[in-house]
Amino acid sequence: MINKISIAVIKRLPRYYRYLGDLLDDGIVRISSKELSEKMKVTASQIRQDLNNFGGFGQQGYGYNVETLYEEIGKILGLEKKHSLVIIGAGNLGQAIIKYTDFEKRGFIFKGVFDSNPKVIGNTMHNIIVQDVADLKEFIKSKNIQIAVLTIPKSNAPELANDLEKWGIKAIWNFAPVDLNVSDKVTVENVHLSDSLMTLSYKLKDAENKTKK
Amino acid sequence: MINKISIAVIKRLPRYYRYLGDLLDDGIVRISSKELSEKMKVTASQIRQDLNNFGGFGQQGYGYNVETLYEEIGKILGLEKKHSLVIIGAGNLGQAIIKYTDFEKRGFIFKGVFDSNPKVIGNTMHNIIVQDVADLKEFIKSKNIQIAVLTIPKSNAPELANDLEKWGIKAIWNFAPVDLNVSDKVTVENVHLSDSLMTLSYKLKDAENKTKK
Repeated sequence: MINKISIAVIKRLPRYYRYLGDLLDDGIVRISSKELSEKMKVTASQIRQDLNNFGGFGQQGYGYNVETLYEEIGKILGLEKKHSLVIIGAGNLGQAIIKYTDFEKRGFIFKGVFDSNPKVIGNTMHNIIVQDVADLKEFIKSKNIQIAVLTIPKSNAPELANDLEKWGIKAIWNFAPVDLNVSDKVTVENVHLSDSLMTLSYKLKDAENKTKK
Repeated sequence: MINKISIAVIKRLPRYYRYLGDLLDDGIVRISSKELSEKMKVTASQIRQDLNNFGGFGQQGYGYNVETLYEEIGKILGLEKKHSLVIIGAGNLGQAIIKYTDFEKRGFIFKGVFDSNPKVIGNTMHNIIVQDVADLKEFIKSKNIQIAVLTIPKSNAPELANDLEKWGIKAIWNFAPVDLNVSDKVTVENVHLSDSLMTLSYKLKDAENKTKK
């Protein structure tokens, strides 16, 4: 039984998963928390604490079995089952995402791409024909789509997100630079690129100020 | 004199900036922390606390002047001066970023685009000719580029990041799905898309488990 886990720990899990996947690719079978700590530049005690949240998978003095740990974290992240996705917005960002082969490898299957621009509808993107967004409702229901990726401009996103909820979407991966107002039944994960760039700008300024002192 | 501000507060500033920008666009001159709190769905006391970190800009019972607050937060975020950027990787993600007009409006000026693929070099992206990455070093030095946007595959990113540091780059906006090993003189802001998608997967699974109970 897993208790409430802090969002900070959860945010670190994909990084563990990524590193363990690289270790697996390199044929490494076992790793100590000390070695993993050196690779990931977090303390060994942080690693032990984080993994203890999920019951811990290591044995004292013996290290972690890379494959087991990878699979267990995958299960925690919900990656043991496949997810069906649609992308809404067939622009460059939508194309970048659909071409990202790692997603499919991890069970995120892009079933459809939708756009409202007649010039784009009918084009092929990564072997998928771009469909009219007018057909989205029917598609989501008939194909039992869980996740929608929103790579559309800000202005249309909030209204569309509310429609997606009505049509049965359970999670939205939102790249539109606006916060959505769906109910708490829908999981939203935002990628606000401009927020990220402004954070970079802040950190850069902060670093410059320190150098001046 | 600004003391050490927690990363949590800093991460919220771009969101304040985004909301205040929308209010400005809507012609709103003044807003109370209560109204802003309702819009942003954070508590009014959180807003007051956050803004107090920077000396506070509001007057009790009178609210915030939207334009002043917008400008002040912009200064804190280092947006009062222009930044010169290069994009390395002229694929879909690089194209999506360069087309994003909001960045230029906020002072992030894309000076050059670079790629190593001969098929792409010489193409035009958003009125900028894609150059050979072999010419990057000279370009960074002669144009005094501060920020590099890395939209290239994982395998080349760590080595290139180390080169960028040698060539004088001060900040890297990293979209490659790998952690970089630059010194702490270089500011790194990561956008790890697969980590974000896995976080969404976790939250979706967590929500499903709660529904089942």
